[in-house]
Amino acid sequence: MTDSWATLPSSAVPGADLHLDLGTLSGPGLRVSLIGALRDAVRTGRLAPGSRLPSSRSLGADLGIARNTVAQAYSELVAEGWLTARQGAGTRVAERAPEKAAALPPGPRPAATRGPRHDLRPGRPDLSAFPRAQWLRAARRALGRAPDDAFGSGAPAGRAELREALAGYLARARGVRARPEQVVVTSGVGHGITLLARALTRRGTGTVAVEAYGLEIHRRLLVEAGLRTVPLPVDADGADVAALDAMPDVGAVLLTPSHQFPTGVALHPDRRAAAVRWARRTGGLVLEDDYDGEFRYDRHPVGAVQGLAPDQVCYLGTTSKSLAPGLRLGWAVLPPALAADVAREKGEIDWTTGVTDQLTLAELITSGVYDRHVRTMRARYRRRRDQLVEALARDSPLARVTGMNAGLHVLVELPAGDESAVAQGAAWQDLAVHGLARFRHPDAPADRDALVVGYATPSPSAWSGALEALCRLLP
Amino acid sequence: MTDSWATLPSSAVPGADLHLDLGTLSGPGLRVSLIGALRDAVRTGRLAPGSRLPSSRSLGADLGIARNTVAQAYSELVAEGWLTARQGAGTRVAERAPEKAAALPPGPRPAATRGPRHDLRPGRPDLSAFPRAQWLRAARRALGRAPDDAFGSGAPAGRAELREALAGYLARARGVRARPEQVVVTSGVGHGITLLARALTRRGTGTVAVEAYGLEIHRRLLVEAGLRTVPLPVDADGADVAALDAMPDVGAVLLTPSHQFPTGVALHPDRRAAAVRWARRTGGLVLEDDYDGEFRYDRHPVGAVQGLAPDQVCYLGTTSKSLAPGLRLGWAVLPPALAADVAREKGEIDWTTGVTDQLTLAELITSGVYDRHVRTMRARYRRRRDQLVEALARDSPLARVTGMNAGLHVLVELPAGDESAVAQGAAWQDLAVHGLARFRHPDAPADRDALVVGYATPSPSAWSGALEALCRLLP
Repeated sequence: MTDSWATLPSSAVPGADLHLDLGTLSGPGLRVSLIGALRDAVRTGRLAPGSRLPSSRSLGADLGIARNTVAQAYSELVAEGWLTARQGAGTRVAERAPEKAAALPPGPRPAATRGPRHDLRPGRPDLSAFPRAQWLRAARRALGRAPDDAFGSGAPAGRAELREALAGYLARARGVRARPEQVVVTSGVGHGITLLARALTRRGTGTVAVEAYGLEIHRRLLVEAGLRTVPLPVDADGADVAALDAMPDVGAVLLTPSHQFPTGVALHPDRRAAAVRWARRTGGLVLEDDYDGEFRYDRHPVGAVQGLAPDQVCYLGTTSKSLAPGLRLGWAVLPPALAADVAREKGEIDWTTGVTDQLTLAELITSGVYDRHVRTMRARYRRRRDQLVEALARDSPLARVTGMNAGLHVLVELPAGDESAVAQGAAWQDLAVHGLARFRHPDAPADRDALVVGYATPSPSAWSGALEALCRLLP
Repeated sequence: MTDSWATLPSSAVPGADLHLDLGTLSGPGLRVSLIGALRDAVRTGRLAPGSRLPSSRSLGADLGIARNTVAQAYSELVAEGWLTARQGAGTRVAERAPEKAAALPPGPRPAATRGPRHDLRPGRPDLSAFPRAQWLRAARRALGRAPDDAFGSGAPAGRAELREALAGYLARARGVRARPEQVVVTSGVGHGITLLARALTRRGTGTVAVEAYGLEIHRRLLVEAGLRTVPLPVDADGADVAALDAMPDVGAVLLTPSHQFPTGVALHPDRRAAAVRWARRTGGLVLEDDYDGEFRYDRHPVGAVQGLAPDQVCYLGTTSKSLAPGLRLGWAVLPPALAADVAREKGEIDWTTGVTDQLTLAELITSGVYDRHVRTMRARYRRRRDQLVEALARDSPLARVTGMNAGLHVLVELPAGDESAVAQGAAWQDLAVHGLARFRHPDAPADRDALVVGYATPSPSAWSGALEALCRLLP
C-alpha cells in the first residue's frame, strides 16, 4: 500500500496537511482508491464537517493524478452524501456528523471529575493568583533576547541565566550560599529528591532518615531508588535531630527546617546546628526541602540551613507554592562536590524543564517582579491565616492551631481519637481536607490527631465558604 | 543564632528581600551583630555594589531595633569603606568589588565552550528558525484564556487542550488513529521510550529488538530499565522485520519507519505490514519513533505505521525537530489498553512538561500556525537538501548520498575503511559531523562506512561555509 499525502486548505485549519491512503496508484483502481480514502477521512472525522477540499485541479497536481479522476471521485462522494458542492463555494465536507471508525475499540470515557465544593487541602497556592500578565511580559522580554542556542538541547543543569538568577535570589532572600555552578534546575522538590536519591545510592548510602510526618511521595521516591527510610520523631521544636546519633547506618536526612511539613513548626536553631554537626562528623548529607521558605509571617524568619554548611547540605526549592504547581519548575543547590554528578545524572535520563519557562523565570527574578509577587502573596496569605485563626478561636475553641507562623497551611490539633470522625464529617460537607495520618511514616507512632489545613488553596471567592465549612466541621 | 530578615529596596531589584544573620538580638552586641551581618552581606556579594539600603528608620522598624543603632552601624561601615552615604542619595553599597566569602571552596570554573566552527551534526533543526514571535503570540492567547486549574498539578497525561489538538493534528498529518485519551504528553521521544520501557518490564518483556543503527541513548534507556536489546539488520528497505520471527524472546521492536535514523531509508510497505502482523501474532508491541515525520520531500509520503494497528503500535513524536529541542515537548500515542498505565507511570515518578508550553503548543496547533511553520521549514530544508546533493555530486562524486527523501539529514556513504580517516579530517577542519559508527548497535556487524550529515543544523549565515567544509572533506 502506497500512501500519498496532500495539503488541503481547510476552513478550520488553513494550510493543513492531510494524509490519504491511496493504495496502488495506477489504473482504474485509482479513482476507487481516492474515493475510499476521502470517504474514510470524512467518516473518521479526520476531515472535519464543513471543511473545504482543494479544487480537483490542485489535488490532482499534488497527488500526481489526472484532474478528471479527482473530479469524478468528488462527484461520487457528493452523490453518496459525504461531500457537498455549491457553485462558488467549492467542494466541502457535508455537515452531518461522520460515524466513528469501527476499527477503533471503544475506549473508557474519561471519568467525570467535579472537584470538592470546598478545598482546604495543603500543598497548593491560590491558582487564581498566578501572575499571567507578568509572566507573559517576562516571557516576551526573555525570549526576545535569548541567543539562538538557548533553544538547543542545552546543559542538563539548566540555562545559565536561570542558575545565575537563582543563585542571586536565594542568597539574598534565603541566605543560601552558592555559586551558579552549584545550582541545578529541576521540575520541583520531588525531582530533586529523585536525583539525590540516585546520587546517594551511588555513594553507597543505604538508609535515609526522614521526618516522622512528611509527604508520602517523597518517602516513596527514596524507596523506589533503593533506599530505606527511618522516621525521626517530630515535636514542637521540629525533627529530633539528636536521634541521628543512634542511627549509624543513616547516610542522609531529609528535613523541612523552615516550616515542618505538615506540623508547621520551625526546626529549633540548636537542632539546625546539630544537623550540621552530624553531617560534618559522619560525612552524611542534609537534604533541605524549603518548599515554602518565602512565606514567613513573624519577626524571626528562618534562613536556610544550607547557609551554615554549603558542603553538607542539598537545598531544594520550587515555584510550586510561589507561582504555580503547573510550571514544574524548581531548583537544587548542591555541595560543589556533588553538583557535577547530579547535573550529569539529570542529563542522561531526565528531560525536564523546557527552556522557555527557564528563561522566563530568570527574567522574572532579575527584573524584581518575582520578589514583588512573593511579597504580595505573603501579605495576602497572612490575611487568610489571620482570618482562619480568628474564626477557629471564635467558633471552634477546642481546636488548637499550631504551625501558623509561616507557609500556606496550619495544623489544627484535635481531641485524641477524633481525626477519622472529623475527616468523615468533612466528606459529608463536601470539604476536602487532609488528616495528619496520611503524612505519618509507617513506622512512626500515631501520637496525635490533627487536620492539615491549606488556607492558600481556595480562590478569593471560595475562601469564606471554605472557612465556614471548616468551622462547622470542627468541635 | 537568631536570624532576621528585612526587605531592602534595592536599586537593582526593587522590593527585594534581604536575609541578615543578626545573632543574639539584645544589648550592645546588637549593633556589632548588625555591622557584621551587613558587612558579610556586602562582602559575599549578596548586597550588590551600588544597591541602595533602606533608611535607618525603616530598617530599624523592620528589625525591631532602635533607629540610632542602625544609623551607627551604617556610619561604621561607611568609615570602613563598605558603604557610601551621599546627601539625597541615601546609603548605598560602595562600588568596589566585594571579596568572595572564604568559606566557599573554589569550585571548578565552567569549561570554556566554543562550539565547532561548522556544525553538520544530525538531530537538530536550525535553531535560528524557532518562531519566537508566533510562540509568544500563541502563549498570550493560550494563557489569557486558560482556566485557573490549568496551573494546578494537573493530570499526568497532560493538558486536555494539547491532547485533543495533538490527536487531531496527528490524524490529519500523519494518519495516526487515536482519541485524545490515548495521547500522553511527554518531554520527547526519549522520555516516551523510558515510560514504555517501564511498562514493558511490568508486562514481563525481557528483550526489545532495535534497528542495527540508531541513537545510542535510546538503547541505553531500554537497558537502564532492565531490558536487553538485539539488533535487526538495516538495508535499503529499512529494518529486516522478518528477522523477528527467529527471535521468540522479543516482546517489542523499536523502529523509525518513516525515515530510518540514521541511514535515512523508509521502511518498505511490505515490512510495515509484516511488523504489524508480527505484533498481532505474538502480542508484541511496535514502538514507532516518528521523529521527523513531517519532513518529507518526495511525492510518496509515508504515514504512520500506527494507523495500520492502533492496538499494537506505540507512536512517539516530538517538537524537537519541528520547533526546537529546548522545548522538551513531545507525545506518545498509546494502544487503549496501555494508555492509562503509562499516564499513571508518568505521574507517579516524572514531573515534566510545564503547563505553559503545553497550552501554547495546543494553541499553535489549533490556530494553524504550527502547520504553516512546518510547511515553511519543509520548503527551507528541502532547498538545503537540494544544495547539498548538488554540491556533493559536483565536488565529491565518490561520496554516495542516500536517505535524502525526508528529514533533516542524509547518509553519505564512503569507500570502505574511510570513515575514521574522514572523521579525523573533519576535526582538522573544525567541522562537527558524525560517522555512522557511533550509531551502530554493539552486536551488529560493521557493514558500511558513512557520515551522517545533518543539514538543518547550521543557521542561514553558517550554511554555505559548512557545506564548503564538507565538500573539502570528502574524497
